[in-house]
Amino acid sequence: MTWAATVLTVMPEMFPGPLGVSLCGKALSEDRWSLEMVDIRKFSTTRYGSVDDTPAGGGPGMVMRADILAAAIDTVQRHERPLIVLSPRGLPLTQARARELSAGPGAVFVCGRFEGIDQRVIEARALEEISVGDYVLSGGELAAMIVIDAVVRLLPGVVGADASLDEESFEQGLLEYPHYTRPQVWEGREIPAVLTSGHHQRIRDWRREQSLALTKQRRPDLYDAHMRRAGGASSKH
Amino acid sequence: MTWAATVLTVMPEMFPGPLGVSLCGKALSEDRWSLEMVDIRKFSTTRYGSVDDTPAGGGPGMVMRADILAAAIDTVQRHERPLIVLSPRGLPLTQARARELSAGPGAVFVCGRFEGIDQRVIEARALEEISVGDYVLSGGELAAMIVIDAVVRLLPGVVGADASLDEESFEQGLLEYPHYTRPQVWEGREIPAVLTSGHHQRIRDWRREQSLALTKQRRPDLYDAHMRRAGGASSKH
Repeated sequence: MTWAATVLTVMPEMFPGPLGVSLCGKALSEDRWSLEMVDIRKFSTTRYGSVDDTPAGGGPGMVMRADILAAAIDTVQRHERPLIVLSPRGLPLTQARARELSAGPGAVFVCGRFEGIDQRVIEARALEEISVGDYVLSGGELAAMIVIDAVVRLLPGVVGADASLDEESFEQGLLEYPHYTRPQVWEGREIPAVLTSGHHQRIRDWRREQSLALTKQRRPDLYDAHMRRAGGASSKH
Repeated sequence: MTWAATVLTVMPEMFPGPLGVSLCGKALSEDRWSLEMVDIRKFSTTRYGSVDDTPAGGGPGMVMRADILAAAIDTVQRHERPLIVLSPRGLPLTQARARELSAGPGAVFVCGRFEGIDQRVIEARALEEISVGDYVLSGGELAAMIVIDAVVRLLPGVVGADASLDEESFEQGLLEYPHYTRPQVWEGREIPAVLTSGHHQRIRDWRREQSLALTKQRRPDLYDAHMRRAGGASSKH
């Protein structure tokens, strides 16, 4: 089955862009996913193709109009796909949400530009607001690309060995352990001896210790959540 | 002064891509920032241009080699710019870090592909690890674009009114209030009356209440941090 992405944007020329090369581009050419763009400007009701207007109550910037955006949304064949709007006000994207999306039929992405979009279209069309992080971008297009990239690499057959997805950051709720490769010595720095010992159990233990220590140091929020889950699991014995 | 971005990547053809159009593209053509790409493959020491090798200790995926990546990094004229590697293991990008970066001379971005990059080059070259969110991407290129976009829109003169940057999400540590624009009534839904009242103080109060309520509901982490700061500030009286 082909995972179907539809992107509503005033910048359709941005796509596929980075999604058209490398891992995502190869998967696109293999029909593992599909990409359709809808140009919101085509639904403008003004002579100049504008899709925004000044904010009610005053303030800087421009707001995307509910009527024009809804007209664009309503032309999309949903096919049970979630309707997502990229916004710093949304719930943060997680690896778990990316995995859920990858198990579904696809997603429809609404990309805001300007100050934001009219709240009424978010409510009337039940848009799911997703944030890719606690910062502000010039528009939703790069954020949509982020979500699509995070999802597409999880689709079956896209990353070579399925096993390579299990050990990476966040899949266990932890940051990933450090990686090393040849040369054995570089600028006087050696690969940690345990990794070239051939003792598989010691290597696993070392990597887990490294993951835990790094997560505790850099992301106490993730570490605490991980320890709570681990505690909850062990208390069932 | 021109904010200077240098991107080290095995996919230089991805750039400028989305950064070459719209707000960032206009700012690029106006020399408000500059973009230089360094192709890591040019520093390969193998006949086939490979830059990676199998992970020490075993496991899936490939690891970018320290010697090749360091050779690429060492050709870059740093000019006091921070050296950033995009990685899910890094500290999360925040609007505050984007603002700090925008006040500096630029940044050098190292984009990993494959499983990761050799830990020794991260340590030997003191790379700052930045994560754009708690999910895994197929490479660092889209993440670098996110950082650049978040920074470029903060550069002087890029977004029309400087005032429009102050009220948005995260600048006050809160999610932004909802936006509305014409038409006054759409699908039976009206713009909240306060916004068309003309009472500027009531509009400010309403927006602040909306920001606080939304942040409390969706992002208790941000809400708690905001209330701690507010409490700390008022205790100084």
